Amino acid sequence: MKRTDRRSDCPTNFAVESVGDSWSLLIVRDLMFKGKNTYSEFADSEERISTNILAARLRGLLANGIVRREGRGRTGRYFLTRKGLDLLPMMVEMIVWSGQHDPDTAAPQGFLTRADKDRDGLLSELEAGLVEAHELLP
Amino acid sequence: MKRTDRRSDCPTNFAVESVGDSWSLLIVRDLMFKGKNTYSEFADSEERISTNILAARLRGLLANGIVRREGRGRTGRYFLTRKGLDLLPMMVEMIVWSGQHDPDTAAPQGFLTRADKDRDGLLSELEAGLVEAHELLP
Repeated sequence: MKRTDRRSDCPTNFAVESVGDSWSLLIVRDLMFKGKNTYSEFADSEERISTNILAARLRGLLANGIVRREGRGRTGRYFLTRKGLDLLPMMVEMIVWSGQHDPDTAAPQGFLTRADKDRDGLLSELEAGLVEAHELLP
Repeated sequence: MKRTDRRSDCPTNFAVESVGDSWSLLIVRDLMFKGKNTYSEFADSEERISTNILAARLRGLLANGIVRREGRGRTGRYFLTRKGLDLLPMMVEMIVWSGQHDPDTAAPQGFLTRADKDRDGLLSELEAGLVEAHELLP
């Protein structure tokens, strides 16, 4: 995002202008925790994203350097960039918060316990898996 | 949010349905880090939120139990609930991420260093201040 296009230099604002909408965060979730990489896999999410919103959000994530794409059209595959991978701690905190406050949460108890007792270990392990899956430098 | 109203039980989805839009997160930021409590203070943010969006987002935050209100109209004051305060680790991770990836960030270097070197201490200190400011139980 060019500096002139943004509403402020506030770090919260930078994050929300980069990924602060529901659908972008759900796409990051799909890439990060569900092993999804293709347009049709994202379109198949339980939340039923519409195809025009999905296409627009993928363009935004590409433009903001959160994801990169290999190939085009139906065979195109999306990967997290380092900038995208660095959203991992924030995504984990979102899951922890939902685990605390949603009585019907689908968050696995093992994940929540590990985030509480061994946060650094959990983050390191998740990061190592993502570095490999998204072909990033360690 | 009632379970029947939501798109899925996924914890990421719960968080984004609760606070996953730019303006809600900026209001939480104002309450958490800028000591703002009133409608007119929120309206005065650098990002220039429109008054109808601000009113709608405050209603959503109230409905989702993220904030509570004392008084009405011009004299009404908003406070974070415990559920709202528990967003603190996620908000800190958003700031850290922006500090890492925004060359023009206004995030204070001291804050970023502390988040890196003494995360638990930083969170405890911020939480203690917020418990007092928002009249919550420790």
